[in-house]
Amino acid sequence: MSIKAGIVGAAGFAGIEAARLVLTHPEFELVAATSNELAGCKLSDLYPNFLGVTDLAFTAHDDAPLTECDVVFLAVPHTAAIAQAPALVQAGVAVIDLSADFRLKDPAVYEQWYKVKHTATDLLAQAAFGLPELFGGELRALASRRESGQGVLVGCAGCYPTATSLAAAPLIRAGLVGEGPIVADAVSGVSGAGKKATERTHFCFADENVEAYGVGSHRHTPEIEQILGIEGRLVFTPHLAPLDRGLLSTVTLPLGESGVSQEQLDGLYTDFYADAPLVSVLTGGAQPKTSSVAGTCRAHVAAVYNAHANVVVATGAIDNVGKGAAGQAVQCANIVFGLPETIGLEHIAIPA
Amino acid sequence: MSIKAGIVGAAGFAGIEAARLVLTHPEFELVAATSNELAGCKLSDLYPNFLGVTDLAFTAHDDAPLTECDVVFLAVPHTAAIAQAPALVQAGVAVIDLSADFRLKDPAVYEQWYKVKHTATDLLAQAAFGLPELFGGELRALASRRESGQGVLVGCAGCYPTATSLAAAPLIRAGLVGEGPIVADAVSGVSGAGKKATERTHFCFADENVEAYGVGSHRHTPEIEQILGIEGRLVFTPHLAPLDRGLLSTVTLPLGESGVSQEQLDGLYTDFYADAPLVSVLTGGAQPKTSSVAGTCRAHVAAVYNAHANVVVATGAIDNVGKGAAGQAVQCANIVFGLPETIGLEHIAIPA
Amino acid sequence: MSIKAGIVGAAGFAGIEAARLVLTHPEFELVAATSNELAGCKLSDLYPNFLGVTDLAFTAHDDAPLTECDVVFLAVPHTAAIAQAPALVQAGVAVIDLSADFRLKDPAVYEQWYKVKHTATDLLAQAAFGLPELFGGELRALASRRESGQGVLVGCAGCYPTATSLAAAPLIRAGLVGEGPIVADAVSGVSGAGKKATERTHFCFADENVEAYGVGSHRHTPEIEQILGIEGRLVFTPHLAPLDRGLLSTVTLPLGESGVSQEQLDGLYTDFYADAPLVSVLTGGAQPKTSSVAGTCRAHVAAVYNAHANVVVATGAIDNVGKGAAGQAVQCANIVFGLPETIGLEHIAIPA
Amino acid sequence: MSIKAGIVGAAGFAGIEAARLVLTHPEFELVAATSNELAGCKLSDLYPNFLGVTDLAFTAHDDAPLTECDVVFLAVPHTAAIAQAPALVQAGVAVIDLSADFRLKDPAVYEQWYKVKHTATDLLAQAAFGLPELFGGELRALASRRESGQGVLVGCAGCYPTATSLAAAPLIRAGLVGEGPIVADAVSGVSGAGKKATERTHFCFADENVEAYGVGSHRHTPEIEQILGIEGRLVFTPHLAPLDRGLLSTVTLPLGESGVSQEQLDGLYTDFYADAPLVSVLTGGAQPKTSSVAGTCRAHVAAVYNAHANVVVATGAIDNVGKGAAGQAVQCANIVFGLPETIGLEHIAIPA
Repeated sequence: MSIKAGIVGAAGFAGIEAARLVLTHPEFELVAATSNELAGCKLSDLYPNFLGVTDLAFTAHDDAPLTECDVVFLAVPHTAAIAQAPALVQAGVAVIDLSADFRLKDPAVYEQWYKVKHTATDLLAQAAFGLPELFGGELRALASRRESGQGVLVGCAGCYPTATSLAAAPLIRAGLVGEGPIVADAVSGVSGAGKKATERTHFCFADENVEAYGVGSHRHTPEIEQILGIEGRLVFTPHLAPLDRGLLSTVTLPLGESGVSQEQLDGLYTDFYADAPLVSVLTGGAQPKTSSVAGTCRAHVAAVYNAHANVVVATGAIDNVGKGAAGQAVQCANIVFGLPETIGLEHIAIPA
Repeated sequence: MSIKAGIVGAAGFAGIEAARLVLTHPEFELVAATSNELAGCKLSDLYPNFLGVTDLAFTAHDDAPLTECDVVFLAVPHTAAIAQAPALVQAGVAVIDLSADFRLKDPAVYEQWYKVKHTATDLLAQAAFGLPELFGGELRALASRRESGQGVLVGCAGCYPTATSLAAAPLIRAGLVGEGPIVADAVSGVSGAGKKATERTHFCFADENVEAYGVGSHRHTPEIEQILGIEGRLVFTPHLAPLDRGLLSTVTLPLGESGVSQEQLDGLYTDFYADAPLVSVLTGGAQPKTSSVAGTCRAHVAAVYNAHANVVVATGAIDNVGKGAAGQAVQCANIVFGLPETIGLEHIAIPA
Repeated sequence: MSIKAGIVGAAGFAGIEAARLVLTHPEFELVAATSNELAGCKLSDLYPNFLGVTDLAFTAHDDAPLTECDVVFLAVPHTAAIAQAPALVQAGVAVIDLSADFRLKDPAVYEQWYKVKHTATDLLAQAAFGLPELFGGELRALASRRESGQGVLVGCAGCYPTATSLAAAPLIRAGLVGEGPIVADAVSGVSGAGKKATERTHFCFADENVEAYGVGSHRHTPEIEQILGIEGRLVFTPHLAPLDRGLLSTVTLPLGESGVSQEQLDGLYTDFYADAPLVSVLTGGAQPKTSSVAGTCRAHVAAVYNAHANVVVATGAIDNVGKGAAGQAVQCANIVFGLPETIGLEHIAIPA
Repeated sequence: MSIKAGIVGAAGFAGIEAARLVLTHPEFELVAATSNELAGCKLSDLYPNFLGVTDLAFTAHDDAPLTECDVVFLAVPHTAAIAQAPALVQAGVAVIDLSADFRLKDPAVYEQWYKVKHTATDLLAQAAFGLPELFGGELRALASRRESGQGVLVGCAGCYPTATSLAAAPLIRAGLVGEGPIVADAVSGVSGAGKKATERTHFCFADENVEAYGVGSHRHTPEIEQILGIEGRLVFTPHLAPLDRGLLSTVTLPLGESGVSQEQLDGLYTDFYADAPLVSVLTGGAQPKTSSVAGTCRAHVAAVYNAHANVVVATGAIDNVGKGAAGQAVQCANIVFGLPETIGLEHIAIPA
């Protein structure tokens, strides 16, 4: 089988990572990588990483044979996916959207946080949420629709929501969380700030620095709340740290009356992810390291019972561009196309 | 004036930073830097930073003229300060202890967290707590005792307690904090893990990695709770990130019934630190950067009202070895010797 | 086909990278990974990167079924390979040695630089030199011997020799180099200093630092001279820089009387590596980046004509643990087993 | 004494470092810091490092009282200094130029490398070369002219020239260097690429990467040759490595007939810099580390006799923005104003 794949917005960090994954995927064939700015430029001119791998050049969006693709990855800013997805789905394409446009189920919440009206609410209603370990059913349901020739749409989870939710979901779904705020302090590598050269992303400003940003206002807040069903309870504070790839979310969850022991926690988490090939649970107090998953679509999670304050501290580590973006998009595509979930995603992080 | 200063444990990160500060301090003279392991080795052989500055060599502890010093900085592991401080105080020395031995006012709490009995409880009762912006009175009280010829003892605050408490204290002391857990997620540079070469501090393991550690069990927990008067309510989770110097603590505080606005917060914090020359408040949502204070004894703090979850997110950035250790020790010494608080500590962080 | 592979010294940086490559190689099966220190410890306990990938544990060297392996990678210090290789070759195993023991063809040179007598000179005489792009014939010759059931031995090139030689060989073999010293200044990531925790590898000492080491005395000097046939002419100065993986060698070569133009150079290099799937030539003055090949077995090279001083500056970038060690070992094994040279080595470096 | 100082181009890396140094200098007073783009913005808004230190704001160039200053530091691009220096010197100001405009003594060489005609050749003829350890006489000569009320001009050496020349000068001036190319391979931190946000300076591209640039064409080439008197013999290849501040130049020098021993070298270098308070010589094979001088105006140099190839490998480490730019500018100003050479420059690099 050869599944024709296109990537829209292929020059950015998520787009080019999607290209990397598609190019080494046994079942996908990269037929188009769009970038209006860089049309005509070879991928390997921008990223010499691709020298000796592909001679493909970026194409302008309007010149790309996207409707002839079986799958199109949209690695575009929000609102751009709303503009592009409908026609592609209409043309029978499986659209995997990495933007925020099809994540929030309630258009009013989208409008509240993104300050723009959602103009494709019909499509939004049909979109599956792209976080396979927590919403696999939605994705598998798309597989049969796609097989019958219809276009389908996946709105992939964002990077912070992925790490935060994978860390917190087992405890919340087990009904063990009590009342009060749920605090997620997360740290991302600088790739999370995007490819645009800005003062924030300048090496000399990002290097040897840690800082919080978007305190109380980050748009991933409602997405995490939707995933976990904790509307209005999340205190989400993202931070930047001087690494390229990697995201760690540390979630502090108040316990309900029943309490929990470390043994229970370890068992609960291990069971929860027993069938999730890309999620590993660290037990006995071991903590996830972002370096253990960098460059991959894997997630490492742990939950520790903090007896001192009677809370659970759950942590989740991912590669923000991998499992947090392009890797998850390919994982979703694998499911939608009825392929093994991990095919093309078997990478092992570089050990030191 | 020339105040004779000695440093015990001068080869470690806090000790050598104390040496750096003392050597450029207008009123202090470094007369002894001890290291049993490195006795005879010049400071500049271990740290070529000192080439052209000093020819001083480390001396074995027993060979150092410590009782002839006016001030001795103890940059030693816990329990070692308990062993060394009494004789020095007895001899009339001003002892500035950077270890954890004289921070916790209740010996039972010390024993609970450090798993060893405190054997200098009389001295503990007389020690001032070394965090000038919050306990300046204790330090100034020592100044008169010292002037009358008596030995005195300061137990300097730890790195995480300093950043966390400077960030949270204004809100807590204003009585604005409500019930429930107070969550401090803090990120430290690798120097916080000490000079010993271990797998954790190996460049290839620390680089490009973020991870939590000591979840629910870090010994700075009771110290922060004591400073802030929040016993049993603190969820403290420290993390390591790939930078050398720098520590950011992000503290989420539930609000009481009265609530607060961003304007109130900014005013409250600005007023609180109006007389603190080494603490700056960032207002209007601006966030502290650890790089802005690296290499200095300064602290940057901010408090943001998170309307979404009705909490305050307070952040504090310091250099963990500077304001978090050696710098604070010198600041305390300045006060104890009646000098201007900031003398010898006017460093400005390197801009990019 | 399933080729049984063993790795001796699998806990070090080169050994564990070999494990990573073997575990995702379509034709190899990892049956033994030895570490006397860590026997019984799972690979995934030491490197959580392997969680969800393998449950294999390290075995003590004497307990490992090495003689039942088809191929054994020796990722051991020098002299250890001399001790271990003969019995394995005798048992019919294809031995791929990553140490320095079987690189220098002249035992006297080995003794001069490594200060120890070579005690397996017969085997040394039969060993192929493991640098496929320059000595592919030696490796292909082993393929037929191995097919006839005999044990074979490859002494893989070191990291600095690989980058330096790939950069310089086309010019030298074309006879364009004149008289005088050939200067190779090379910069390596800290992984090149090995996994042992030392002051040199401590994050706080390696971070934000560049320094030269082994000036005039590095043991890769005679190896580079042997490869390039420039005995006594090489000035080799290695440096450490604050990155994990990556090695750049900058080689300044005096020109002979005939001179050369940039066009000639570009053509010469492109032709030279036309059949080398893992080496890419950057032309027109573009320069190799180590980040473009990190985590891979690829090499990027360029040669620039410096008209000002009438020399050629040739540069070569590799991953010191990849193409400079474990990747090259697998590449050699591929050739020895008659497999496509690049199988299992198709990784693309992570783009940003 | 209070010497009024102005900085033109104060928002860039060299300019803001000059501001840092002037603000803590006992004899200088910062009265103007210009930036046309950021006029009205406080230094502490752009660089929070200055919070609690100064409330000074950037002023537009034309609004700054530069002619009322005693000393003006020009931290501007080349050609801008040619435009600005004449009027300032005419007004009696001591102008310390950090740009390349007044370094090259021969206007034709300037035109050849900078592709623009030099239009202030009279002033060029009067300018002192700002590298005190090698051209102290020129600077001291200015001191008397300035004292008589005349304006004076210093063209400070560039970063690469400073490190390279301090490393190589003792050997060259001793007449020990033979014929053939002199190869300087230098590695700079990313601050050397300037404050402008570009792809090259983006954290995700600069991090974990080493690469050469400007091969054979870097404009510091003729400057180094002029300083050392080695016209046409220098092969200079600069590199970028993932650190913020720091520059190491490794210079390979062929020996003349007389040869040299390591003892001779150590003695030669130690004697050469006996009266240079900011240069330290490492002997016995020890190598300079850039981290030992980061944030300072110090330089560390070493020379090693490479017996294998009969050459000397000389290395020099500086902070490219410190001794390589703003620090050296202040050092020159100190001399021109008859102050102790090191006043305000006593910083010790942060030890880990």
